[in-house]
Amino acid sequence: MKKQTLKIVKIGGNVINNDSSLTSFLSDFAALEGPKILVHGGGKRASEISSAMGLVPKMIDGRRVTDSETLEVVTMVYAGLLNKKMTAQLQKYNCNAIGLSGADANCIVAHKRIVKEVDYGFAGDVDSVNSDFLNTLLQHNVIPVFCAITHDKNGQLLNTNADTIASEISIAMSDLYEVEVNFVFELKGVLSTIEDKDSVIATINLEKYEQLIAAGIISEGMLPKLHNCFNALKLGVKKVKIGDASLIKSSSKFYTTLSLT
Amino acid sequence: MKKQTLKIVKIGGNVINNDSSLTSFLSDFAALEGPKILVHGGGKRASEISSAMGLVPKMIDGRRVTDSETLEVVTMVYAGLLNKKMTAQLQKYNCNAIGLSGADANCIVAHKRIVKEVDYGFAGDVDSVNSDFLNTLLQHNVIPVFCAITHDKNGQLLNTNADTIASEISIAMSDLYEVEVNFVFELKGVLSTIEDKDSVIATINLEKYEQLIAAGIISEGMLPKLHNCFNALKLGVKKVKIGDASLIKSSSKFYTTLSLT
Repeated sequence: MKKQTLKIVKIGGNVINNDSSLTSFLSDFAALEGPKILVHGGGKRASEISSAMGLVPKMIDGRRVTDSETLEVVTMVYAGLLNKKMTAQLQKYNCNAIGLSGADANCIVAHKRIVKEVDYGFAGDVDSVNSDFLNTLLQHNVIPVFCAITHDKNGQLLNTNADTIASEISIAMSDLYEVEVNFVFELKGVLSTIEDKDSVIATINLEKYEQLIAAGIISEGMLPKLHNCFNALKLGVKKVKIGDASLIKSSSKFYTTLSLT
Repeated sequence: MKKQTLKIVKIGGNVINNDSSLTSFLSDFAALEGPKILVHGGGKRASEISSAMGLVPKMIDGRRVTDSETLEVVTMVYAGLLNKKMTAQLQKYNCNAIGLSGADANCIVAHKRIVKEVDYGFAGDVDSVNSDFLNTLLQHNVIPVFCAITHDKNGQLLNTNADTIASEISIAMSDLYEVEVNFVFELKGVLSTIEDKDSVIATINLEKYEQLIAAGIISEGMLPKLHNCFNALKLGVKKVKIGDASLIKSSSKFYTTLSLT
């Protein structure tokens, strides 16, 4: 039997930080037909509230180190403020959203990242996703909205990368659905010329991906993002798209589609 | 057919503010058999974070006025920090908790309190509870944990009294279950002599309630609390108990049971 399509959309700071772009995105998301899941990152509000509280952000190699004070702030801002604001706004648009962290209904279990050279503090690497419960929600037309907070099933909340959460949910849901993941970021897609914001590469398969890395066209921040995407495709996800917030509109023309073959 | 019993437990600052009392309570709550729902208030953390952010709490007649900055803080602290911490801890104790605000799955719709003499700002008075969805969760052995944040179905989050939320959920669930509500507060129960913390009145029916008010034994803070309880009983709730955190233990001896007759 052909599986139903499930759309999973991940948004980050570039959509969240601007009230009007967020409102417009949520209205588009609410209009998407069929089962869907939203995953959101953090944005600048966590940093603003941290500094309002007199905390100094701790970064190692451009990654936020999650000490216990930072964990409190990201839990407040991601799982509280942002998640509930988005949920309330989706409800306004008649999308029956439910805001979730990984601790809720044991949706995402993670473990505290093992310390090698760097101690990232309360950063969580995902172990498992409760796809049965997510499927129950979707069958009741309830739309999960995930923030990037997980737990270790032993009472500890953990800060987790939102791209990773979107991938892990996508992989787990692929047993039950034909999953399409949309990663919304600041560009229209993967660019062939970094200076030309319109030079979107329409499709990238595994072979082309390796060529683009070898040619230095995919580098820096794009590397882990695309690695993450191809990993999801290898583990059963049907389709991955990368683009800006217009990506989820049916009128959208410019974005990058990733596939294995 | 006899309805199944549903236990709804409300806790406030006196349990939440102390880490060891909260841990002990959550372990007891996790051990309760059968369907159950937890409702939690705020506690001092919201005030601490407000003042760390340089906000000055605004009170009228001992009630917090919820301006937009305060709403942000209570949404962060109640729906984010406290709700997710409790959910993660209950998961540790093998209670499959799900943290919820009223916006999530449209669980509790409220309206912004009408301004008469006092403008309470973004304070919400409850209109409806989504008992069908709560029943779906309970049938899947998923245990709702509510913070005191609701929404107006028009994109606005609202700050709502946690006692009221517990009552409204109890009333709404009475169609489907025999509901027992436990209000946990700082005393062992309703006291006959305010100076004697052990002078717990074991049972109060409607007639005795009116006598106790006339005699001045129930006054001040207890008045709205008991009014709330008797209102719930009149609207179908089976049993109301008031006491300290030991109330939910099977060994508990001292508490006040309220009933109509």
